Formats: sequence, C-alpha cells, structure tokens
Amino acid sequence: MMLEKLREEVYRANMELPERGLVVYTWGNVSGIDREAGLVVIKPSGVEYDDLTPENLVIVDLNNNIVEGTMNPSSDTKTHVELYKAFPTIGGIVHTHSPHAVGWAQAGRDIPCYGTTHADYFYGAVPCSRNLTAQEVEEDYELNTGKVIAEEFSRRKLDPKSSPGIICRSHGPFTWGKDAAQAVYHAVVLEELAKMALYTVILDPQCSGAPQYVQDKHYLRKHGPNAYYGQH
Amino acid sequence: MMLEKLREEVYRANMELPERGLVVYTWGNVSGIDREAGLVVIKPSGVEYDDLTPENLVIVDLNNNIVEGTMNPSSDTKTHVELYKAFPTIGGIVHTHSPHAVGWAQAGRDIPCYGTTHADYFYGAVPCSRNLTAQEVEEDYELNTGKVIAEEFSRRKLDPKSSPGIICRSHGPFTWGKDAAQAVYHAVVLEELAKMALYTVILDPQCSGAPQYVQDKHYLRKHGPNAYYGQH
Amino acid sequence: MMLEKLREEVYRANMELPERGLVVYTWGNVSGIDREAGLVVIKPSGVEYDDLTPENLVIVDLNNNIVEGTMNPSSDTKTHVELYKAFPTIGGIVHTHSPHAVGWAQAGRDIPCYGTTHADYFYGAVPCSRNLTAQEVEEDYELNTGKVIAEEFSRRKLDPKSSPGIICRSHGPFTWGKDAAQAVYHAVVLEELAKMALYTVILDPQCSGAPQYVQDKHYLRKHGPNAYYGQH
Amino acid sequence: MMLEKLREEVYRANMELPERGLVVYTWGNVSGIDREAGLVVIKPSGVEYDDLTPENLVIVDLNNNIVEGTMNPSSDTKTHVELYKAFPTIGGIVHTHSPHAVGWAQAGRDIPCYGTTHADYFYGAVPCSRNLTAQEVEEDYELNTGKVIAEEFSRRKLDPKSSPGIICRSHGPFTWGKDAAQAVYHAVVLEELAKMALYTVILDPQCSGAPQYVQDKHYLRKHGPNAYYGQH
Repeated sequence: MMLEKLREEVYRANMELPERGLVVYTWGNVSGIDREAGLVVIKPSGVEYDDLTPENLVIVDLNNNIVEGTMNPSSDTKTHVELYKAFPTIGGIVHTHSPHAVGWAQAGRDIPCYGTTHADYFYGAVPCSRNLTAQEVEEDYELNTGKVIAEEFSRRKLDPKSSPGIICRSHGPFTWGKDAAQAVYHAVVLEELAKMALYTVILDPQCSGAPQYVQDKHYLRKHGPNAYYGQH
Repeated sequence: MMLEKLREEVYRANMELPERGLVVYTWGNVSGIDREAGLVVIKPSGVEYDDLTPENLVIVDLNNNIVEGTMNPSSDTKTHVELYKAFPTIGGIVHTHSPHAVGWAQAGRDIPCYGTTHADYFYGAVPCSRNLTAQEVEEDYELNTGKVIAEEFSRRKLDPKSSPGIICRSHGPFTWGKDAAQAVYHAVVLEELAKMALYTVILDPQCSGAPQYVQDKHYLRKHGPNAYYGQH
Repeated sequence: MMLEKLREEVYRANMELPERGLVVYTWGNVSGIDREAGLVVIKPSGVEYDDLTPENLVIVDLNNNIVEGTMNPSSDTKTHVELYKAFPTIGGIVHTHSPHAVGWAQAGRDIPCYGTTHADYFYGAVPCSRNLTAQEVEEDYELNTGKVIAEEFSRRKLDPKSSPGIICRSHGPFTWGKDAAQAVYHAVVLEELAKMALYTVILDPQCSGAPQYVQDKHYLRKHGPNAYYGQH
Repeated sequence: MMLEKLREEVYRANMELPERGLVVYTWGNVSGIDREAGLVVIKPSGVEYDDLTPENLVIVDLNNNIVEGTMNPSSDTKTHVELYKAFPTIGGIVHTHSPHAVGWAQAGRDIPCYGTTHADYFYGAVPCSRNLTAQEVEEDYELNTGKVIAEEFSRRKLDPKSSPGIICRSHGPFTWGKDAAQAVYHAVVLEELAKMALYTVILDPQCSGAPQYVQDKHYLRKHGPNAYYGQH
C-alpha cells in the first residue's frame, strides 16, 4: 500500500474532526499531499468516521484520477486538488460545516480581525469568497469552488501561509496548513474566531477591530523570523 | 412478540435522541411503520429513555388502536399515524423539542435555505406550519396537528422526500425518513440547520439565501438518479 | 440521624444540579421539607458538590433554627423557609444561577409562553419578580426575597402548582415541586425554556406567543384530572 | 528542584483550564508567586497541556530572568510579573481566551454588574482596559500590557481584591486571586458572567444593572469581616 505514513497522518487528522466537535455525521473531510509524488490522500465520500481506517482512504493524482483505493473519494476532491495546485506551500486541507463559520459564510461577510486570538493565526480578516455563477456551478462545481478560492486570494493579494483559510459564500470553511494536522488546527481556530466575532458583533455592531499595529505584533510574535512564542 | 426487527430499530432510534443531545428527559419520540402490516411501533408516553426497551414499545394500527403493548403510546401517536397516512413514502417519524428548531417554530418563521449544509438535505426552506385553530385543538389536537402538516405540504406542493421535516408553529419539529434511523438523522440535521440559520440572521437580517442553482446542485449531488455523493 | 429518607432525596437532588450542567462550583442549592415534622433539609453553605453527603446536609425548622447539623445551612435558607410557609403545596425548592434564566432575570423580563414546551410545565409566563427595596435588603435580604416572591404570586393570582418557578429580578431562578427531585426537574425545564425563548426573541422581537387555547391544551393534557400524557 | 509545592499548585491550576473548557490547545497560562522568595512559577510557552508537568514549569524572578527551567516561559510572562509588582495582594494570575469574555473585550465594553452572580465575585463592572498605543506595543508589548492594566485600576481606584480580573481591549481576560487555584476560579466565573451579560444585553440593550444596594449586599455577604456565606 502506498504512502503509509501520509495515510496515517490524514486518517488521524480526519478522526480529530468529530473528536473536536467540528462535524456531525460525515460532514467534513481532510486531505494531505505528498508533493514529490504529486499524490493526494483523501477521505472517501460519505463514510462514517467510525468506519474510517488508514486503508480505506483514497489516493488521487493532481488530475483527480484514483491511483489507489476501492471507494469514491470525497465529493470535494476536485476542490482540494485545485487548492494544492494554486497554493504550492500547503500540505493539508480541511473542509467542515462548523456552525459559527457557516453562519458568517451564509451571511456573506468576511470575519474581521477583532482581536489578538484572531491575529495570532490569521493576518487580517478571514476572507469570504463570492458565490459561484450558475455557469461555474453547472460546468464543474467542485473544481470551480477551488478556482474561486484561488481567485479571491489572488485578487486580495493574500498569502495562504498567513491566511490559512477562507469561508466560501453560502457554503462553509476551508482551512489548510503545512500538513493535515495543522489544517485541522486551523479549522478549530477558525470556528473559535467565528464564535468570538459573532459575540463581538452582537455587543458592538460597528466594531472597527483591533488596531493594525496590534495585529502585526501578535501575528509576528508567533510567526516569521523574529517569532518568540513557543519553544525554538 | 410482533415485529421484533422493527421494534429493535425503533428502540435504537429512540435511544439516539438523548445520545445526540436532542432531548432532555422524555421530550421526544420516534416511531417506525411496517407498511405491509399497516402497523406502527412507537415510544410509550412519558417513559424515561433509561427505562425504554424494545419490548415496552407500543404497536398501534392505522386507526390508532393498540395492537400490542401494555403501556399508553406516545401522546403524539395520532400525529404520527396521520403523517404515515398522508405521506406513503416515509417509514419513520421523529418529534423533538430541540432548542434552535423550537426557536424558529416559536417565532413562526420558515427556516430559509441559507447555504449548502441546508441544501444537502432539505430542498428549499424548512416550512413552518400555521397554528391550529381553537376548534382544531378542541376537536382532536394531535390528529389535527398531523392534518395541518399534511395541508401545509399540499398547499406548498412539497414532497416529503425532499422536505424531510417541518416545524409546527408554537410547537417544534417533526422529521421523517425512509426509516426510524433516517428520521433521527434528519432531526439532528434540522437542529444544526436551525442553529446555523440563527447565526446567519444575527449577522445579516436580510440574508437572501443561497442562489437557487447552488441549492439545486447540492441537493441533486446527494439525491436523485445522478447523485455522486457517497458510495454507490 | 433524623429524616434519613428525606436526607437521601435532597442529597440526590443536589447532586443532579452539576450532573445536569445547571451549576458551576457551589452555585445552587436544593432543599426538601417534611411537612408533618415541620423540618427542612438543605445544602450546607459553600460546600463543593464533591464533598456533599446525605449526612452533612443541615436540618432547620420553620423558624430557621438549626435542628441537626454541624455546618451552616445555605445562605439562602430563609428564602426557602419563607416559600415553604407561603406555598403549602410544595415539597422541594431549588435555586440556581443557570445562565439563560439569569439572562432573563437580569433583563427584568417575564419569560412569555412562546410555545408548547413551555406550556407543558408552566401555565402562562414565568414571572419575573421586582427588585427588593434598599430597606428590604438591609432589613433581612434572604427572608424578604421569599416574601417578594410570595407577594408576586399573590398579586398575579398565580398557583405555585401550575407556575412551578420564578425568576428574581437581578438575581436568578427559584423553582419548586412536590419534592426535591421534581423541583430540580423544573429547574432544568426552566433553563431550557429560557434558552428557547431567547432564540425566539432574536428571531421575532414582537412574538406574541402561543395562542391561549394551545397553552390550555398542552398544560391540561399533562396536568389535572383529564391529563392523558404518560402512564396512569 | 525549587518551590516544589508551588510548582504542584501552578501545575494543577494550569490543567484545570482545559478541564473546565476555558481553553483550546495551548491558549491560556497560569502562574503563581512565592512572595518571600520573589519568584514566579509559570507555564512554558506553547506547550500542550498533555505535555505539561510540574517539572517543566519555568521559574522567573521579578526582573523576568529565568531562575530555573530549560524552556521558554509563557510569552505573556512580563505581563504576569508586572501585575505581581502592581498588585502586592495577589498570589496567582490566569490569562485565557475564553470566548464570551473575549467577545466583550473585542467590543471594548466593560461588563456591567447586571446581577447577583456578578456581585458575588466582582464589586462593580469588570473593567475593559484601553488599547495599547503603537509606541507601547513596539517598545515592550507584554510589559506594557501589564502597565496598562495597572493604570486602569489606578485611574478607576479599583482594588484587585474586589475586582479580581479585567478584560484587555482587543485581547481577552486576565484574572487573579490569592493563589493560582483562586485565579482559575475567577477565570471560570468571569466567562460565566460574560455569557449571562451577553444574554442580558440581547434581551435588554439598555439594562441599567442591579441596584447598588443589591451589589453591596451580595458582595459583602461573601467577602469582608461580616461575610456569612460558606463555613467559617
């Protein structure tokens, strides 16, 4: 069996979704990529987490062909693959329907950076992408979901390393990271930020957010060459 | 003892209500039907879930007569039976007082299709039925609750397969499915949709919902002849 | 040791508060009364639930004198005793700071009967009592808390059997029942109703509530001589 | 190894943060001080709670020098140390990103004393401090966070014993107490108060809060020379 280590990592990351309370039933999927091999390991479609094993994960190549596996890959596979192509620095992707993040996505609003919890992980607002057009949906829904995300990042000149996720309008969040585990970490963080931001909006609908220099400070004390958070 | 397999299924489905956090105490009930026999298995009234067994479920016929069982059936039995008669394609029914769904029911508002989580399971808004009239309540409250639900579906030309539930005004949700287990699944989904929709309304009171072509896409990729979600 | 059976009941009821998620730390207390003996068993003040035993509960008489026990009784004891005097039909009392009920109490609003979940247990709105005056607080805070509750019931002509609780303005809920266990049951129900009602108000700030005939129907199908809910 | 008893206390207090649901991942930190030795025991930076031991806590002096330990102390260490200097009566400090408290901090609003749950622990509103200036952030962010908190207390003439916490604008809560355990207790209480106050604001945006004499009564029945809550 190919990519045993990556299978194990992606399996563990998938299992973390229900453990962290991010998904009910089969809502959500995690993938990881082996950049050298050009292969993506992803959750099979519609399989309960209790029935998931490292072995029944599906391996696809960057043309969305199944390379190993007897099950259908996640119906969102083309979105994952498109994001791996658009963002060469990422190693894992997560899609969930976590409720607070979905709330913002359904309202079609960016999640502003209201404070340091947000600034520690996302540099600036969590972007909300536009709705797909009818033609984009009809042509290839999942592929174009990936393209619209990449377009949003390109238009806003965002770096997927400092903006490790997005909420897709009328849909929900995608997050990513250097590997599958970090992508899940960012999915948990995004849900928590979305919850705090909802409370903030209730308490101050006109909240202007954290000062830019506070955002800079918090992001940079955790990330980049002069970071001093954690053990190095 | 009759219908042992159905008893077991309905028992399991009832027990899932507290396990999924959908009910407190005895709030909620699940039934399942054997269409050939014309018999419904349903939770006894007011019995704690800890005391529930497959054996103490009650079997009634489609005239609401007890066919097997020593306990009173759920006080909502006539509503269940009426729905089985009105909707010949369904095999299981659930009633809960899950809090977010009740919030919408008490506000008397349909739950609009704000996004893909909703569109994956409900085609269009989750309808909110009208209040019963004083006469309907006096005459036969539980029977007429079923009739008002059926009337709402008829008036709106809804299909119980693509709209697997309703919220009854000033009351709470009823959901259904091909069997008792799927009816519970839809009860969990409905509560989750109601929660996300509440957050959405807070963030955008005028939210116009997901574009129709996105709703079509998501519903149809999971349901119908060309569905491609899951394993087939 | 006196009243062993009542001690055991009141102990079990107290322990249910943290088990049901109604209290953090030592917030909350339950008492039960032996009407014949004229004695009240109540939680000692400020004791962690982990350290509670049937034996360290305190017994007081209806003049608030300690009859058995080495610890101080709950600081709310005089409120409990006053309620037992004012409401001769009740056998157990609970005080909590459950968050949604407190939200309504702090806002100084009755919880309207918005639906059948509410009507199943409370006949009409859950009343919110007035603030105590400065003099009432100074004179005897806990005693007067009981008197203000009784005054509210008298003024509104409410029956403590069909209105098994109140929220005290700027404070929180008291509930009661035929015994300590039922008082806890009503505390759980009240928190759930307060939560649903909060969601309802967000969705429809002008919600006029369930029609009176629906409230009558639901309350009476569970209570009174013609009740048909549950097993009889 | 130095200060074994304090290490154990601070370790236990840190572990309580995830147990009480106050933090996700490594968000949050607890410290405790030995006033005689002038030494502070604090969580190492970025370490998962599962990997925490009494032994890997870090000891720093009041000049922020590491006295014992091989890991970096929490990135918030200078804030803790500054608070120990400014508030000589406190023995433990906690920082979290608990979501409701963060909601208020991000909205830049004090949490008013809306009721007795609040008055039992905080005498008056929980203050929200101002944003740091760009210069304060650049100069020494963590040190100046402590100075701004102390300034806020000085300006408002607050006593850290009767106001055992603050929410820092655009950031989150710091709480403290006579020791690390009590500081955690106050962190739990603050999150609960923030939650109840959010519900209150939704129900009554103009809520004027509990009368001053009720606040006095509740605070003083638990604290000060004439307190009568608990066992003495």
